[in-house]
Amino acid sequence: PALPPAPVPSPPEPARHVGLSFEDRAALAVNPTAKQLFQIMADKRTNLCIAADVSSCAELLRIADQLGPFICCLKTHVDVISDFTPDFTVQLAQLASKHRFVIFEDRKFADIGNTVVLQYGGGVYHIAEWSHITNAHTLPGPGIIQGLAEVGKPLGRGLLLLAEMSSAGSLATGEYTKTTVEWARKHKDFVIGFICQRQLIADDATFIHMTPGVRMAKGGDALGQQYDTPERVIAERGSDVIIVGRGIYEAVDPMSEAIAYRDAAWVAYSSRINKAS
Amino acid sequence: PALPPAPVPSPPEPARHVGLSFEDRAALAVNPTAKQLFQIMADKRTNLCIAADVSSCAELLRIADQLGPFICCLKTHVDVISDFTPDFTVQLAQLASKHRFVIFEDRKFADIGNTVVLQYGGGVYHIAEWSHITNAHTLPGPGIIQGLAEVGKPLGRGLLLLAEMSSAGSLATGEYTKTTVEWARKHKDFVIGFICQRQLIADDATFIHMTPGVRMAKGGDALGQQYDTPERVIAERGSDVIIVGRGIYEAVDPMSEAIAYRDAAWVAYSSRINKAS
Repeated sequence: PALPPAPVPSPPEPARHVGLSFEDRAALAVNPTAKQLFQIMADKRTNLCIAADVSSCAELLRIADQLGPFICCLKTHVDVISDFTPDFTVQLAQLASKHRFVIFEDRKFADIGNTVVLQYGGGVYHIAEWSHITNAHTLPGPGIIQGLAEVGKPLGRGLLLLAEMSSAGSLATGEYTKTTVEWARKHKDFVIGFICQRQLIADDATFIHMTPGVRMAKGGDALGQQYDTPERVIAERGSDVIIVGRGIYEAVDPMSEAIAYRDAAWVAYSSRINKAS
Repeated sequence: PALPPAPVPSPPEPARHVGLSFEDRAALAVNPTAKQLFQIMADKRTNLCIAADVSSCAELLRIADQLGPFICCLKTHVDVISDFTPDFTVQLAQLASKHRFVIFEDRKFADIGNTVVLQYGGGVYHIAEWSHITNAHTLPGPGIIQGLAEVGKPLGRGLLLLAEMSSAGSLATGEYTKTTVEWARKHKDFVIGFICQRQLIADDATFIHMTPGVRMAKGGDALGQQYDTPERVIAERGSDVIIVGRGIYEAVDPMSEAIAYRDAAWVAYSSRINKAS
């Protein structure tokens, strides 16, 4: 007689990232850059990304070498550097290896697919060659992700989508943010997460959430930037990485300030995963 | 005895741009770059902008020199040029003077105000120094316009806002487009118009509408770009300038092709203003 059918196992509970450690998420991640970033965060116990918006190669390399031990990621705007040479990216890559951080060129690609292919792989910057991570606006439609993936996926790079912005009057809200999240899910071999203000995906722990506009003290600048604290961003809103720029590198003692931000963000992360478990 | 009050004149009918000539609009424009562009269009009888997305300085300069007589504007992506040097922008400026066209660096700025100030004025490109026009997404909020204006307004530059895009699945629609138009009105000393698919402002003839994704033959590319014809874009939808790239510079005979596009766009413009008057 026929055997009774085997019981169908219920699908596993989706991994909620708020309660998972970065180490667990490194194991889950498929994209090599996402895996590397999660592992660095777990090993170095830091979820701090420095935004180094300075205008000289020497100054940027000095910041990278001085603050490298305390960060998981260094965010650049290569196009504000006035004395850029290709050798700069070689030196930056050496510092990234020495201190174990990933490089994130904050290019905010925002053009049609055919154009971003040329901008990402070519020009004088060859961003795809040295930047582990870059980011893009979804405004032009999904062709921008496909175009960037053509260049970056074969190199094992990762893409962050700008789902929300920290600036006053940003139009990246509501349906815009929702659509961005949907497109990320559809391209999760290349899209590793979001620039956002809060956790956007609770049921897939492989996406990483990075939040700019973070300072110990609340406030803003004269051109619409708005700031929030590490505790709010990581513990309350469920983001993963804080991005801090002028609050650290313009401080009297950038190293002490970096350590203070690193510790505040790590305490917030630890309290979040402990509360959830 | 007191004189009777003078009759209050009713406000002048707002100038509807569909029926006004480029010459009339040159007279109305306040921003010096907008005025210059309208005047060039009127004098040279061309509302064709060439998009020259090539990767070498020599090739771009050759295109600018060969097609310069037939265009009002040359659109660049300076960051796809692999052998860029500052001297290139000097030579490009000389060709712009020789053939009377304006330079439009299609940078699609898309960051917060503080960052775009550095990107527009600094880096290796110094875009504000040589590009009469640049453009920006409004996604980050109005701070991006204020930031760019800080750099570009003192130089007499003009900014186009991306109100719509020609790529498939673009999220620049509906409320997004509407908000972009409102912000343009608020900054009309610096914002000279739009990248868009159709006329967006009927009651202020000083704004210029420029439309990419134009080809004689309809169709698209593999990465989501969609094409429409000069007749549809200018005569039916009320845009002012067509932006044509690969359709011209990848043609067997780019000069004949440029002339054909120039004539098609000018005929469409002429039929529009004649119909309206």
